[in-house]
Amino acid sequence: MTSTTVIDDFFAIVPAGGAGTRLWPLSRQGRPKFLHDLTGSGRSLLQATADRLTPVAGADGIVLVTGQRHVAACREQLPALADDAVLAEPLPRDSMAAIGLAAAVLEERHGDVVVGSFAADQVVSGQAAFEQAVREAVVAARAGFVVTIGIAASRPSVAFGYVRSGDPLGLDGAPTALHVRGFTEKPDAATAREYLASGEFRWNAGIFVARTSVLLGHLAEQRPALHAGLREIAAAWDTPARDEVMAAVWPGLEKIAIDHAVAEPVAATGGVAVVPGTFGWDDVGDFNSLAALLPSLDDAGDKVVGGVPGDVVRIETGGTVVVPGSGRVVALLGVDDLVVVDTPDALLVTTRARAQQVKSLVDAVRERGLDDLL
Amino acid sequence: MTSTTVIDDFFAIVPAGGAGTRLWPLSRQGRPKFLHDLTGSGRSLLQATADRLTPVAGADGIVLVTGQRHVAACREQLPALADDAVLAEPLPRDSMAAIGLAAAVLEERHGDVVVGSFAADQVVSGQAAFEQAVREAVVAARAGFVVTIGIAASRPSVAFGYVRSGDPLGLDGAPTALHVRGFTEKPDAATAREYLASGEFRWNAGIFVARTSVLLGHLAEQRPALHAGLREIAAAWDTPARDEVMAAVWPGLEKIAIDHAVAEPVAATGGVAVVPGTFGWDDVGDFNSLAALLPSLDDAGDKVVGGVPGDVVRIETGGTVVVPGSGRVVALLGVDDLVVVDTPDALLVTTRARAQQVKSLVDAVRERGLDDLL
Repeated sequence: MTSTTVIDDFFAIVPAGGAGTRLWPLSRQGRPKFLHDLTGSGRSLLQATADRLTPVAGADGIVLVTGQRHVAACREQLPALADDAVLAEPLPRDSMAAIGLAAAVLEERHGDVVVGSFAADQVVSGQAAFEQAVREAVVAARAGFVVTIGIAASRPSVAFGYVRSGDPLGLDGAPTALHVRGFTEKPDAATAREYLASGEFRWNAGIFVARTSVLLGHLAEQRPALHAGLREIAAAWDTPARDEVMAAVWPGLEKIAIDHAVAEPVAATGGVAVVPGTFGWDDVGDFNSLAALLPSLDDAGDKVVGGVPGDVVRIETGGTVVVPGSGRVVALLGVDDLVVVDTPDALLVTTRARAQQVKSLVDAVRERGLDDLL
Repeated sequence: MTSTTVIDDFFAIVPAGGAGTRLWPLSRQGRPKFLHDLTGSGRSLLQATADRLTPVAGADGIVLVTGQRHVAACREQLPALADDAVLAEPLPRDSMAAIGLAAAVLEERHGDVVVGSFAADQVVSGQAAFEQAVREAVVAARAGFVVTIGIAASRPSVAFGYVRSGDPLGLDGAPTALHVRGFTEKPDAATAREYLASGEFRWNAGIFVARTSVLLGHLAEQRPALHAGLREIAAAWDTPARDEVMAAVWPGLEKIAIDHAVAEPVAATGGVAVVPGTFGWDDVGDFNSLAALLPSLDDAGDKVVGGVPGDVVRIETGGTVVVPGSGRVVALLGVDDLVVVDTPDALLVTTRARAQQVKSLVDAVRERGLDDLL
């Protein structure tokens, strides 16, 4: 029942934010994670996200929401984006404001359509399975649900939130869709193992599909002020008053994640569904998880991100992740499981085990007043 | 009996050679070890060597022997050197040719004087003790001996050759000078421990002091062809024929170390003496031995070579040696006992335990055809 056509009245919202601090010094405030080709595919995470969504939403069906400072870089990477397909945030207001603004603007332009949010900094493998999950999610969304796509948890990760599924929806065209019993925060290791054992829990990838009227209707109930502000901005968006209204309203909007604002409360009243995703997914949170996505150079298990392996000279090394990002030769002798990130103005040397703690190093760099390195 | 005056008719020969391959990528063929300030003293090893010798040999009593390609850099670092105080080697012919040429040229210029050879890439601490040892060595040299200064072995090193002492010379003015029973190659660990236990063995620092007539006389007996070649070059050195004679004779000279050519055979016939040195000495062979000469930044025992510690941001590191040589920030998280050498065109990451094996990495860089990095 797989279709290969673009889905009618469906729009993909791509929030492009997040500094990717744990990928410093590769990822910077001025050039964050989503602008980088981390997997050596030849496409940045943002470009790969657009490539992935075009078959289901169409080239004209993608709307990007990103910070003012990243608009130019995003347009450079996605030249096909229409002028009105990029919504610029003067300052970050978290995912509910970003996704809600795009939903409200799309409803102003196209009426009650189905929208889906797909973060710009995730890695997906298995295009057919991804498209199939989206198509089922849209069917469930048309039936009035807020629909998430739950990722098959391949390990008891404590880095992700989980979505807990219940009974099947039993919808034509969405055979695998299930009711959602609730969402959970990042669990501890023991809890995560229980989740895996139960078979009811999947990773929450932050993908939410819903009719704009449904999503914004829930928002109006849960967060009336935020909803009103977004509606006011959306009404002015395609008019000369946009900048004036944005300047007046946006800064005062509540900063809250879509999970807390809508997904969790609505799940509690049975309004959320989940389509199990059977595709490979990772949010590439740090250099160790990035390494897991990369092929090894040889049996020693070293990995090179970008650059050409010729940039790296290795003797008796193993499991080391190298990012040769300055054009210099990186010479390694007798080191195992290190992370070496070489950029023109900053060098990082740590271990794969410490990859999650790179954030603390970035804090130390900030405390040193080396802001131009952030 | 310590004198503070310059020693009459004494000249210091400073062979400035050796690529310092185990200090790559800091030390390069084009800018070798002796041109670097490794200890953060503000002076390069070459400059520190000249500073150390000036009180005993005088500013006019120092003669440098170095490769053609290093002459400009040496003169830049030692502007006080007279024009004729630098002897350039068109290509390396090992230490006997270098020291022998300087000795022969000095005898042409000044007659039978005392010369001493002091390598340009060694680190000495304890100026007064050094001068005292040199003054005793000169006294023994005037008595007709080839005199070496033996370094008190602080550990059973397998990286150095040793000199074995015998009975006292009993010379006025050289109260600590001893007969030399022989020289040894680098020993294995067990042998080195025996050497230390015996109290008869000291490190051979390659310091040799002798009258030119004595040194060249022994050379004439041991290596007549080499001696004849050096005499021929020396006779032409301060004449217009220098370049012509060098071009004709130098390339054909035997490549042999002064230890094998003179010190060892002459010791066998009782002609060598040793003055025990009580000063601190190291040849800074690799990054681990360099680290031993540097103060720690804190209790964690990290060391920074050159640069300013502000170039290095550390969290939970220990015993790591950092050479911040590119002006970039080096950020370290949770790594112990590493060696990180950051230069504008090459980065080295290895462990202190592997410091001696850096040579193999340089070989690998050469095999890659990256000759401009050597």
